[in-house]
Amino acid sequence: MKRSFGYAAQSAQTALAPFHFDRRDTGPDDVRIEIAFCGVCHSDLHMARNEWNMSRYPLVPGHEIIGHVTETGANVSRFQVGQRVGVGVMVGSCGQCSACREGDEQYCDEGFTATYNGDEPATGTTTFGGYATDIVVAQDFVVRVPEQLDPAAVAPLLCAGVTTWSPLKHWQVQPGQRVGVVGLGGLGHMAVKLATAMGAEVVLFTTSPGKGEDALRLGAKEVVVSTDAAQMAAQANRLDLILNCVAAPHDLNPYLSTLKSNGKLILVGIPDQPHQAPDITPMVFKRLSIAGTSIGSMKETQEMLDFCGEHGITADVEVIRMDEIEQAFARMSRGDVKYRFVIDMNSLRAE
Amino acid sequence: MKRSFGYAAQSAQTALAPFHFDRRDTGPDDVRIEIAFCGVCHSDLHMARNEWNMSRYPLVPGHEIIGHVTETGANVSRFQVGQRVGVGVMVGSCGQCSACREGDEQYCDEGFTATYNGDEPATGTTTFGGYATDIVVAQDFVVRVPEQLDPAAVAPLLCAGVTTWSPLKHWQVQPGQRVGVVGLGGLGHMAVKLATAMGAEVVLFTTSPGKGEDALRLGAKEVVVSTDAAQMAAQANRLDLILNCVAAPHDLNPYLSTLKSNGKLILVGIPDQPHQAPDITPMVFKRLSIAGTSIGSMKETQEMLDFCGEHGITADVEVIRMDEIEQAFARMSRGDVKYRFVIDMNSLRAE
Repeated sequence: MKRSFGYAAQSAQTALAPFHFDRRDTGPDDVRIEIAFCGVCHSDLHMARNEWNMSRYPLVPGHEIIGHVTETGANVSRFQVGQRVGVGVMVGSCGQCSACREGDEQYCDEGFTATYNGDEPATGTTTFGGYATDIVVAQDFVVRVPEQLDPAAVAPLLCAGVTTWSPLKHWQVQPGQRVGVVGLGGLGHMAVKLATAMGAEVVLFTTSPGKGEDALRLGAKEVVVSTDAAQMAAQANRLDLILNCVAAPHDLNPYLSTLKSNGKLILVGIPDQPHQAPDITPMVFKRLSIAGTSIGSMKETQEMLDFCGEHGITADVEVIRMDEIEQAFARMSRGDVKYRFVIDMNSLRAE
Repeated sequence: MKRSFGYAAQSAQTALAPFHFDRRDTGPDDVRIEIAFCGVCHSDLHMARNEWNMSRYPLVPGHEIIGHVTETGANVSRFQVGQRVGVGVMVGSCGQCSACREGDEQYCDEGFTATYNGDEPATGTTTFGGYATDIVVAQDFVVRVPEQLDPAAVAPLLCAGVTTWSPLKHWQVQPGQRVGVVGLGGLGHMAVKLATAMGAEVVLFTTSPGKGEDALRLGAKEVVVSTDAAQMAAQANRLDLILNCVAAPHDLNPYLSTLKSNGKLILVGIPDQPHQAPDITPMVFKRLSIAGTSIGSMKETQEMLDFCGEHGITADVEVIRMDEIEQAFARMSRGDVKYRFVIDMNSLRAE
């Protein structure tokens, strides 16, 4: 075991604070990583505050991890000391079920091992995440990160990036197709960038007219204020796929009306109350699908990072110090971030 | 114009009764068909009674039509006089939109021309259906019917058959997959037969325990009483695709729980009130889809008939006389039919 240092929540009511803990020794299939940056995902806040009633304390959040390799196990051939690597939402899965065998670890029948607040497969302990100086992860759950990209701005790709990449690839978005993106937040801004780089024409739906200019800067062809019935009507039967990044309960029917036949409405977020029941009529008469999607596989994560390296794509980020995390959570709660906070872990080492 | 004879509703409140009307002359691309049998679809009853608020009177129902060719237009090469043919739910579509160009006439942007109560494209008049001695239809909307099958029992394939065939093919059901079918009626009994013949293991969900024996006879491997929580729990995460043939509003969540990751819940019916709002959580964590589907393309209809010819598949039918249609409607309303009424049109010629 090696001592590590991070920030942890000790309960749902307490602020994140410095926390000393152990990381396991680097096993034969493990990679030890010195963390350079860790993105701040909205789920970090939900979990720190136990808003999903599944948090175990102490809880070290963080699953958008970028760093470099400091040690490799005997069986590790794909990674070398000094190499830049990333870790996302998963650090393990059963490897045996049909989903794992098909390379869809994120849909593992046993449930994947989450990077934090998960069950450490080997030891039965709870995993600690990336708000820390270092981490030890099985090589199959580590990805290469293109060296030419700004590492701080790459961190959010490990969750927000792959969560939007995976459905765009799974449902085979093609150049020239028209893709809707609902909501311009951490996920939505990545969806706009990725779908645009794939050659799709992106239509950004937002309730905030003020976000229009930014959406166009990020690559969107059109911006639709979703509360404006006339603007929505102008999009009727025009879209091939919509990536809906809004978790708050809302009416899906206006989005169904914007889809062409065979269109797909993909839901990335889980509402705390069900969305209003969708109207089945357009689903039948246009063969529409409503589907969910959760993060992406390790293979998709690597493909997405390689694609971002080729196209020079990163997240729009605001870099903070570790001791600014509670202010960042507060701003994130009110949507005041463009579009992702990323923690500089050198600030933690300096503490 | 040629005089034809059929049964029509003159209003939502009146019984179907004998009706003399004109069919157009056989145009260069048309096929004239002497009708042998016509299936009785539940939508015939809905339309006769104006339950969908779109009926125009007089209304001649019927879109599960089997007969033989009596005349062909100058441009018709695919059909010959005397040949057995069928006509289903569509007799036209725009031919220009992307759906039509891709061979999905059933999702025509302009709306396909319905076999009855539709707008006749050439003349602007309303189409009359198959409760009649004969019909004239554009060759692109006529299909060949295997001669070896019982013509009465083939008629329902033109609607109930292709409506279940199309989603099984579109979502690529494979041998060895586990397919759920919800509801054992006109559509459900065809879904069981077709999915079984494709090599899938069929699980029939029903609220009526008494239907179990029949489901097994039709090919189902298992029968689940959907109101029995223990039986439903035993199917958790086991199915690849479910064809839900129940139009009445109901809770879809128990069916989502029976799907594997990447599973699809396909809705064939349109409820008059929305189904309860589905829970998004399993949809996200298993990448599930809920989708609608409407009949099938002309290409799919021909493929389905050829497949049924090879496998000796027809509907289970009860043949009636034309003048028994109102009794048949009444029995159909209370679910008292196994599994489709079919009208013998010789009974009409005898009137």
